[in-house]
Amino acid sequence: MTDAALAEVMRGDRIESRHGGAAVVVDPDGRLVFSAGDVQAPEFPRSAVKALLALPLLEGGAAGRLGLDDAELALACASHTGEARHVSVAASMLHKAGRTEACLECGAHWPTSRTAANALAAAGRAPGSLHNNCSGKHAGFICAAIDAGHDPTGYVRHDHPTMRAATAALGELSGATLDDRNRAIDGCGIPTYAIPLAALSTAFARFGSGAGLSRDRASAAARLRAAAASDPFLVAGRNRFDTRIMTLFGNRVFSKIGAEGIVVAAMPHLGLGFAVKCRDGAPRAAEVAMAALIAPHLTAAEREDPGFRELLNPALTNWTGTRVGEIRSSLGQRV
Amino acid sequence: MTDAALAEVMRGDRIESRHGGAAVVVDPDGRLVFSAGDVQAPEFPRSAVKALLALPLLEGGAAGRLGLDDAELALACASHTGEARHVSVAASMLHKAGRTEACLECGAHWPTSRTAANALAAAGRAPGSLHNNCSGKHAGFICAAIDAGHDPTGYVRHDHPTMRAATAALGELSGATLDDRNRAIDGCGIPTYAIPLAALSTAFARFGSGAGLSRDRASAAARLRAAAASDPFLVAGRNRFDTRIMTLFGNRVFSKIGAEGIVVAAMPHLGLGFAVKCRDGAPRAAEVAMAALIAPHLTAAEREDPGFRELLNPALTNWTGTRVGEIRSSLGQRV
Repeated sequence: MTDAALAEVMRGDRIESRHGGAAVVVDPDGRLVFSAGDVQAPEFPRSAVKALLALPLLEGGAAGRLGLDDAELALACASHTGEARHVSVAASMLHKAGRTEACLECGAHWPTSRTAANALAAAGRAPGSLHNNCSGKHAGFICAAIDAGHDPTGYVRHDHPTMRAATAALGELSGATLDDRNRAIDGCGIPTYAIPLAALSTAFARFGSGAGLSRDRASAAARLRAAAASDPFLVAGRNRFDTRIMTLFGNRVFSKIGAEGIVVAAMPHLGLGFAVKCRDGAPRAAEVAMAALIAPHLTAAEREDPGFRELLNPALTNWTGTRVGEIRSSLGQRV
Repeated sequence: MTDAALAEVMRGDRIESRHGGAAVVVDPDGRLVFSAGDVQAPEFPRSAVKALLALPLLEGGAAGRLGLDDAELALACASHTGEARHVSVAASMLHKAGRTEACLECGAHWPTSRTAANALAAAGRAPGSLHNNCSGKHAGFICAAIDAGHDPTGYVRHDHPTMRAATAALGELSGATLDDRNRAIDGCGIPTYAIPLAALSTAFARFGSGAGLSRDRASAAARLRAAAASDPFLVAGRNRFDTRIMTLFGNRVFSKIGAEGIVVAAMPHLGLGFAVKCRDGAPRAAEVAMAALIAPHLTAAEREDPGFRELLNPALTNWTGTRVGEIRSSLGQRV
């Protein structure tokens, strides 16, 4: 194992738990600005690449023809918490494609938002596919299929033309080969491809800056970034890392988590791409490490913002509200 | 870091995430039967030691005088999921002490059982302290305080006479020194003391076999083990590790998880104590590693039981029910 230290969980003045993994910062040419751990080992990016998979929905004008607005484009990049607005925006996307929730192939789960789950339970309802945290991405695939004249049925399969186009965008931006050898199935049924963390961060450097992309693709990336920055709630939800960091920094930081401890980010004005994989899959460590990774590239005022300090160094409290510990970055420390 | 491999999370045929930590098996004299990783480093046992902290509730006859039954004694050892029976048994304990929910100092949180949380929400109610996963343990402290003639107020403080007695039991069984230097605050407000994993497993070897304990304490331990084995649902809840393993093996395996990736177990008929700490705090890895740790000590029939195979090697499915991977033990492998 060649893991780097990422984060420590403190209880009182002792380390209770520790997380390792890999972290990388690159410029749009893929040059390493910072690296810790093995950044060439293939990792499943999971939901971290939703914005890249959404590029074909804008390229060639599909989103324009379907009349998709910024909220809908933000939701196409989202892992959301199933709150009322997430659900209604996903439903609106399907409506514009002439389809309904029944067309979604992501499966159903209870909203991760306690408030949203309680509201459903109080109404005596069970969750549907619109509540799935990936419903916006899936609605986006259905929109793209309809616009291209394809039957959306089976859009989750790796060989459906819509999924082929999404996969091609990921392959082109990351430079990674995506085929049977590195493919597995994601939690929502679509393929996920193991690619090196360095390639993943390069994809987000390009997604942020547009460098090396066609004019159409650079414009699609800029539109998705603007959509996310204009309504970060739609990309995740209340108190979620991506929503909090984009609410703080607007279009200066694009951020997206994926399951099993993946986080990617872009700082478009600097042309930098970022990626973190927590080896054990813990979001808490990947998020703190990502905050530490972007910190040197923020302004002093941004770095000292109390909202950012909370992301960099979250307090742990018990059920009566007493502070009992904290999570802190150990990025750059010896493992 | 001197961590041993504990478990791997597979997606398709690739390792997506990996967990390390420490694992140990001892006999009642503290002799190492198996060890992997640093088993002398202090770890916070958290809720794993609830059964040890409950010993003073039985010693000297307190539980008998209060009329506590087996269900109530099992709940005193529990980290429960807040289902209706957990709540009613905790309320009954308080009633027998002449107290109410208002006396609990653990704080409130939503039940971790989705069914129980939904039922509360559907009734338009918010959770109270009885729903806290530690409410049985706290009700036990209140019972012990009342029986000893102490004011239970402040029972969570390390210097309250009831907490002193509970701490003394933990110190005596583990042989570890418990003082200001290794004390922090647990999620429910009581003290938790960092002690070596080897000492923790020794405590459970003794708890299981009674070896080296006074007759009164050995009898108290046997009563708590019998109470847990007779109703394992009360110690945790539906689909939880402790409940599942004790449902499978009855009084042949006592098992108890703690927060941040701790699991302890005892096999009383063999005189063995077991402890696992997952370094990153993940229960999924600690549980799989504990299943692997006890497996060699089970009978062939127990080891091949499909219910046990599911604990040793859980399948991962996505939201449409497709199998996408698995968790498997890597205990004993090179890190």
